[in-house]
Amino acid sequence: MDFSLSPELRELQGRTRRFIAEQVIPMERDPRQSAHGPSEELRRELVQRARAAGLLTPHASRDMGGLGLTHIEKAVVFEEAGYSWLGPTAMNIHAPDEGNIHLMEEVATHAQKERWLRPQVEGKTRSCFAMTEPSPGAGADPSMLATTATRDGDDYLINGVKWFITGAEGADYVIIMARMEDGSATMFLSDMDRPEIVLERSMDAMDSCFTGGHGVLRFTNLRVPASDVLGEVGKGFRYAQVRLAPARLTHCMRWLGQARRAHETALEYTRKRQAFGKPLAEHEGVGFMLADNDMDLHTARLNIWHTAWLLDQGEKGNYESSRAKVICSEAEWRVVDRSVQMLGGQGVTGETPVMRIFSDMRAFRIYDGPSEVHRWSMARKLVHMAEKAHAAAEASA
Amino acid sequence: MDFSLSPELRELQGRTRRFIAEQVIPMERDPRQSAHGPSEELRRELVQRARAAGLLTPHASRDMGGLGLTHIEKAVVFEEAGYSWLGPTAMNIHAPDEGNIHLMEEVATHAQKERWLRPQVEGKTRSCFAMTEPSPGAGADPSMLATTATRDGDDYLINGVKWFITGAEGADYVIIMARMEDGSATMFLSDMDRPEIVLERSMDAMDSCFTGGHGVLRFTNLRVPASDVLGEVGKGFRYAQVRLAPARLTHCMRWLGQARRAHETALEYTRKRQAFGKPLAEHEGVGFMLADNDMDLHTARLNIWHTAWLLDQGEKGNYESSRAKVICSEAEWRVVDRSVQMLGGQGVTGETPVMRIFSDMRAFRIYDGPSEVHRWSMARKLVHMAEKAHAAAEASA
Amino acid sequence: MDFSLSPELRELQGRTRRFIAEQVIPMERDPRQSAHGPSEELRRELVQRARAAGLLTPHASRDMGGLGLTHIEKAVVFEEAGYSWLGPTAMNIHAPDEGNIHLMEEVATHAQKERWLRPQVEGKTRSCFAMTEPSPGAGADPSMLATTATRDGDDYLINGVKWFITGAEGADYVIIMARMEDGSATMFLSDMDRPEIVLERSMDAMDSCFTGGHGVLRFTNLRVPASDVLGEVGKGFRYAQVRLAPARLTHCMRWLGQARRAHETALEYTRKRQAFGKPLAEHEGVGFMLADNDMDLHTARLNIWHTAWLLDQGEKGNYESSRAKVICSEAEWRVVDRSVQMLGGQGVTGETPVMRIFSDMRAFRIYDGPSEVHRWSMARKLVHMAEKAHAAAEASA
Amino acid sequence: MDFSLSPELRELQGRTRRFIAEQVIPMERDPRQSAHGPSEELRRELVQRARAAGLLTPHASRDMGGLGLTHIEKAVVFEEAGYSWLGPTAMNIHAPDEGNIHLMEEVATHAQKERWLRPQVEGKTRSCFAMTEPSPGAGADPSMLATTATRDGDDYLINGVKWFITGAEGADYVIIMARMEDGSATMFLSDMDRPEIVLERSMDAMDSCFTGGHGVLRFTNLRVPASDVLGEVGKGFRYAQVRLAPARLTHCMRWLGQARRAHETALEYTRKRQAFGKPLAEHEGVGFMLADNDMDLHTARLNIWHTAWLLDQGEKGNYESSRAKVICSEAEWRVVDRSVQMLGGQGVTGETPVMRIFSDMRAFRIYDGPSEVHRWSMARKLVHMAEKAHAAAEASA
Repeated sequence: MDFSLSPELRELQGRTRRFIAEQVIPMERDPRQSAHGPSEELRRELVQRARAAGLLTPHASRDMGGLGLTHIEKAVVFEEAGYSWLGPTAMNIHAPDEGNIHLMEEVATHAQKERWLRPQVEGKTRSCFAMTEPSPGAGADPSMLATTATRDGDDYLINGVKWFITGAEGADYVIIMARMEDGSATMFLSDMDRPEIVLERSMDAMDSCFTGGHGVLRFTNLRVPASDVLGEVGKGFRYAQVRLAPARLTHCMRWLGQARRAHETALEYTRKRQAFGKPLAEHEGVGFMLADNDMDLHTARLNIWHTAWLLDQGEKGNYESSRAKVICSEAEWRVVDRSVQMLGGQGVTGETPVMRIFSDMRAFRIYDGPSEVHRWSMARKLVHMAEKAHAAAEASA
Repeated sequence: MDFSLSPELRELQGRTRRFIAEQVIPMERDPRQSAHGPSEELRRELVQRARAAGLLTPHASRDMGGLGLTHIEKAVVFEEAGYSWLGPTAMNIHAPDEGNIHLMEEVATHAQKERWLRPQVEGKTRSCFAMTEPSPGAGADPSMLATTATRDGDDYLINGVKWFITGAEGADYVIIMARMEDGSATMFLSDMDRPEIVLERSMDAMDSCFTGGHGVLRFTNLRVPASDVLGEVGKGFRYAQVRLAPARLTHCMRWLGQARRAHETALEYTRKRQAFGKPLAEHEGVGFMLADNDMDLHTARLNIWHTAWLLDQGEKGNYESSRAKVICSEAEWRVVDRSVQMLGGQGVTGETPVMRIFSDMRAFRIYDGPSEVHRWSMARKLVHMAEKAHAAAEASA
Repeated sequence: MDFSLSPELRELQGRTRRFIAEQVIPMERDPRQSAHGPSEELRRELVQRARAAGLLTPHASRDMGGLGLTHIEKAVVFEEAGYSWLGPTAMNIHAPDEGNIHLMEEVATHAQKERWLRPQVEGKTRSCFAMTEPSPGAGADPSMLATTATRDGDDYLINGVKWFITGAEGADYVIIMARMEDGSATMFLSDMDRPEIVLERSMDAMDSCFTGGHGVLRFTNLRVPASDVLGEVGKGFRYAQVRLAPARLTHCMRWLGQARRAHETALEYTRKRQAFGKPLAEHEGVGFMLADNDMDLHTARLNIWHTAWLLDQGEKGNYESSRAKVICSEAEWRVVDRSVQMLGGQGVTGETPVMRIFSDMRAFRIYDGPSEVHRWSMARKLVHMAEKAHAAAEASA
Repeated sequence: MDFSLSPELRELQGRTRRFIAEQVIPMERDPRQSAHGPSEELRRELVQRARAAGLLTPHASRDMGGLGLTHIEKAVVFEEAGYSWLGPTAMNIHAPDEGNIHLMEEVATHAQKERWLRPQVEGKTRSCFAMTEPSPGAGADPSMLATTATRDGDDYLINGVKWFITGAEGADYVIIMARMEDGSATMFLSDMDRPEIVLERSMDAMDSCFTGGHGVLRFTNLRVPASDVLGEVGKGFRYAQVRLAPARLTHCMRWLGQARRAHETALEYTRKRQAFGKPLAEHEGVGFMLADNDMDLHTARLNIWHTAWLLDQGEKGNYESSRAKVICSEAEWRVVDRSVQMLGGQGVTGETPVMRIFSDMRAFRIYDGPSEVHRWSMARKLVHMAEKAHAAAEASA
C-alpha cells in the first residue's frame, strides 16, 4: 500500500498547477465565451498556450504526440487542469474529445488514426460522439438505439437523429453509434462537413464550458464506406464500454478540480467576511460546511485514485468506475452547493467563479449514466457476486 | 381545526390557475427577456393581462385598488401565480414590490401613499429596496449597516453603496435603509431618477426572473427631506422586521408554485419516457423521487398555511416565518433538484421550464436570511423559551 | 382554514399532559418491565390510574365507555400520551389494541363486541393481531398470506404460523388473518387460551414498550365457528385497510410524543452543560440540531393534523395516511437520533429516557409498511392520478 | 501509488477471516453475555482460541509478544476481527485495551511494562482508561478536567469521579487522567483492587460488546507513587493525543467489520426473500440501498487505509484521523441503518446479528469526540492552513 506520488508526477502536478494559475485563469473573463461555450478562436489560443507549456493532450500516447499518462497520472494532472473551466479545453482533455482520443487509440486503424486522431491530438481539430437520441431512442438505456445503419454495397447508409451531442457545432469529425439490421450496434467515423449531416440546432444548456455546446444532429442517408467503420462491425456496445469506464473517471477528475476551486473560493471568503462579530468561518455552521467539503473532496480523490490504479493494473473496472462516478458526482456537487451557500449573494452572482461552476456541474450527476442507473447496475452486480460466492461455497462443501 | 378553503377562495384559486395557464405561460418564450429578467415592455403587457382578469396586485388593500387578501388567501393565490415565473410579474406580486407595497401600506403617510404607492399598486411603476451592502457592510447581519444618513437642516444626506438590489434597473422609487449618527437605522423614500443615485452596474445572477435584475447602487449626498422619511426616524430595523416576516412567507408561496411546476413536468415526462422496458415512473428509483416530491410539496404548503393563519390571527410570527422559510426553501429546492434528475438531459437544457426554475430558485436558500442564520435565531429562541418556561415553573413551585 | 384547538380539546390536552407528568412518568423506572415490555401487573396498575383520571380508552365510542374522540382529538391527546412510553399502555391506546378496538367498533357484531370488545375497552383484557408471517409468507407484501382457513361443516380450521405478533404473550383474544380456498382473505376472532394456539417463543426485539412483546404463534387445526368470523368472509384485505389507515396515523401521534420528549430532554441538557466555554446549546452546531428538531416536530404534527382532519371528513385517506406515515416516521426518527447526538454519552446510556426512545422507535420506519413500500404505492397513485387528469383533459378537449 | 496488499498480509487477512468464521461466530450465542458485555470467563475462552490461532494481541510489539503490526496491517486485520462483535475481545484488540497497550508501549517505563503491559498483552489482564467525567467535568472538552492530583511527599493523591469508563468492572489496572495544581494534566497508573477506587455502578448502555461494560469510578485519596506516573508529569494532554489518533482509527477498522457484516446479512436476506413477485434485492428501492452500502463501506475503507499509511510514514495524523473518524463513523452507521431497513422485522429483532450491531454502534458517532467536535477542529485547521498559505504567498511576493 502506498499513497505517495513519484517525484516526476509531483513535478508535473506543480507545472500544471502553475500553468492553470498563470496562463488559463487570467483568460476566464475573456469575452469570446457564450452560453454555448468558448469560441473556437479562444480554444485555439488556449491550446497554443498548453502546447508551449508542454501540456497539450497529455493522455495521448507518446507515439501520437502525447505524454502517455497512466490513469493515476491522469488523476493528478486532470484535477489540476479542472481547476479552471478553461483548463481542459486548453490541454485538449475535455469531453468528448478526451474519451474519443482514448477510444481511437484503442480501436482505430492506422489509416484512421493518421486521418482523424493525429490532428486532434495536435489540438487542430475537434470531434463529437453521437450516441444519445431523443425519445423514444437511446438515453440512459442504450439498448433503445434508433439510428440505423443499413448495408448498401460496400457502404453503410446511416439515418437518425441524435441530441445532447457535446461539441457538435464546429466539430471536425464524429463517431456515430447506429443499430444494424441484426440488432447489434456499430460505430462509424465521418467528417462533419457532409451535407447529409445537419446541425438542426444548438440546445440551451445549464452548462457553458464545452466548446461547441450541445447540438441536435440529423443524419439523412449518410453514406459511410466500410473502411470508416470504427473497429469491428457489431461491436458498438462493447466499444462504448471501452470508452465509457475511463471517460467516466476523467469526468470525476476534472470536476474534482472545479469542486476544489469552489471550496477554496468559499474558504477565502469566509476567512475574511465578518458577520455577527467574527469571520464567517469562525461560525460553527460555516465551519462545518468547510469540514464537510474537505471530507467530500478527499473521498472523491481517494475513489478516483483507487479506480485509476485498478485500470492501470489492466482491470476493466466497470463496476468500480460506476461506483466512483456516483460517489464523485454527488460528493463534488455537495461541495459546490455548500460553497454557494457559504458565499451567500456572492455565490449566486458572477462575483466569483462559483456560480459558473454550479451551473456547469449539475449535469454531471446525469450524463455518462445518471446516478440511478449506476446504482441499479451496481446492485445487480452485488447480487450476482453474492450468488457466485454462494454457489462456490456450496460446491466446495 | 379546519383545512378547507372557502368557496370564494377556491373560485379565486381556479381563476388564477386558468389565468396563468392561458395568459401567462404562453408568454414564457417571449424574447423580451434577458439574463437580467423580463423587459419593462413585457412586464407592462403582462400587467395589462392581469388587470383585465381582475387579478392585479391582489394583496393590496381594497382602498388602494387591490383585493385585500388575507395571508391565507395569499398563500393559495400566490402559489398559483408562481406556477409560471412570469406570473408574479403579471400580477404585481413579485419581490421586492410585493413586500414594499405591504410595508408602505403599514407605515407610509397618506401623501407618501398617493405619491408612490398608488401608481405602484396600479402596476404603472416599480420600486426597489436598498438594504444589502458589499463587505464589510450589511449582509446576513443587518447590524453591519454602513450607509449613513446625516442630518443637514430639515433634510438628510445619504451616502453609501448597496448591492444585490433587486429590480434596481428601471425602478421608479427606492426605500433606503441607512444608519443614523446614534447607531439606529431609518428608512428613506426617494425617486430613482436623481443624479445622486447611480446604478453602477447590473450584476450577473443565476436567476433571471426579476424585472430590473440585481443592481449595485451608489448614493452620493442624496438629499432627502424629512417628509420622505418612511415611518419614524430610528425605527428602520423594526420596519425591516415588519416587511420581512410576511415577505419571507410570500417567497415560500411563489416558489411553491415553481416547485410544483417542476414536479408536474417531471411527472409528465417520466409517465411517458420508456427505459429498460417500462416507463421511467414505473422504476422504483424514479417513483421514490416522485413520492418524495409530493411529500416535500405538501410539507411546504402546510407550513405556509399554518404560518399564514398565525399572521392572520395578528401574531408577528417572526419565529414561525423563519421556520417556514427554512423548511420551504429547502423542501422546494429538493423538489426542483429531483425533478432535474428525473428529466435527465431534458432537465439541464431549455427543453423544459425546469432548468430555468432550477437556476432561478437556488438563491432562495440565501436571501431574506440564509438557512444558517434562521437556524441560529431559531435555536436561540428555543433556548430562551425553555429558560422562560423553566423560570416560570420554578416561580410557581 | 383554522389551526386552533377548541377550548374543550385544550382542556383535555392539558389534563392528559398533567396525567402523564404526574401519574405515568414516575412509574418509568418501575422494575416490573423487562426486555419484552411492561408486565401485566404494571399494566393494570397504570390502567387503574388512567381510569381514575377519566382518560381510559378515550378513542372508543361513548357507547362502549370511551370518550368517542375524533381523529383530530386523538391527534392532540395521543401525542400527549406518547410523551411517556408507558402513557399509551396506561390509557389503553397502545398498538395493537388501539387499532383492534377501532376495527371491532367498525366491523364486529353486537355479540362479538359484548364478548371481546367491552372488557378490552374497560382495560381488563388485551388482544393481538395475527397477520405477519415468516418467509415465504406475508410480510410487507400481504398478498403472500400463507395461513389457511378451510371450511369444515359450519366451522373453519385455521393452520399456519405468524410472527412479530405484538402483545401475543398474555393476550386474551386474537384477530387472525387467513387465506380462503378461493385466494381471498378472512379475519377470524378467537380466544387465546386454546390448545390449538401455541406461543412458540417471544422474540428479542429492539423495542421494549409493548406489553406482551412480540411473539411467534402457531395455529394447528384451530376450529373457529362461523359466528366468530369478523365481518364478512373474503373481506380480510379490505378490513386490513380499514384498520390500517387510522392505525398508521395513531402511531405517528404517539411517537410524536416520544420524539418531543427526546428533543426536550436534549434541550434541557444542552442549555446547562458547558463545553468550550459556553453552554452546548450556544454552539451553532448544537443549536442547528435543536432548530432542525423543532422543524421536524412541527412538520410531523402538521401532517398528522391534516390527515386526521381528512379522516374526520369521512375520507378514506389511504394515500394521505401513507404519506403521513413516511413523513412522521422519518422526521421523528431524525429528532431522536439528533437528540442522542446532542446528549453525547448521556444519549447512549440509561441516564436519560432518550436511549430507550431510540431503541423503541427504530422499528416504526418498518412496521405498518416500510417507508419503501409506502413510497412505491404513493408513486403509483401519483402516476395514476396524472393519467386520469390527462384523460379527463383529453376528453373535455 | 499502490493499493495492493502484500502476500503476507493477504495470508494474515485470510487466516483472521477463517478464525472469526470458525472459532468466534459460533460463540456469539454463548449465554455468558449480559447487557454489560461478555463475561470474563467467556473472554478468557475466546482469548485462548486466538492464542492457539497465533492471532492474540497482534498489534503489540514482537518484544512484548505481539505481531508488531503496522497501521496498514492493523487496518486489514482489525476489519476482519470486527466482523464478529466477539472478535476484538478474542484477539485482545478491543477498546480501551488496544489503545492502552499502544500508549504503554510508547510511554511506559520498562518496569511499568513488565508489571502491567506484559500480562495484558498475554491476554491475562484487562485495563481501563479513566478520562471522561460527569458534568461539569471533562467530556467532549478535555480542558474541563476536574479530577485532581495533589503532591503529597513523593506520592500523589488523586480525587475525583469518572464515568463512561469502558471495561471498568473487572479491569486489573487503570490509567487515570488528573489535573495538577498548575492546570496541566498527568496520567497515573494504578491497580484497580485498591479500596480508594470504588466502582459506584455499571451504567446501562445501548451497547453490550465491551467486557466490563461502562462504569462510574470514584477515586478518594488514591495514593500513587511517583514511579507510577505514566510518562512525564504535566504531559497528560499530549499523551492523550498520542493515544487518541491511532485509537480513533482502530475504532474505524473494527466497526467497518461490523458494518460489512450487517451489509452482507442484508444482502443474503434480500437475495432470497420474495415480495411483490420477485426477490427484495431486485426492487430498485432495495438495490439502491445495497449500492449505497457498498459505496459507504468502500469509502470508509479507503479513508482508513490512507490515514493508516500516513501514520506508518511517521505523521501524527491528528487532522486526518479526525477526518477518518467522522467519515467512517457516519458511513458505517448509514450502512447499518440501511441494513436494518432492508431486513425489516428481522432487522429489529434478534433473528439476525444486525439488531445487535445497530445498538452497539450508535455510540461510535459520539465517543473519541462527537462528529461535531471533530468537524469544528477540522474547520479551524482548514482556516489556519489557508492563513499560513496566504501569509507564505504574501511573503514570497
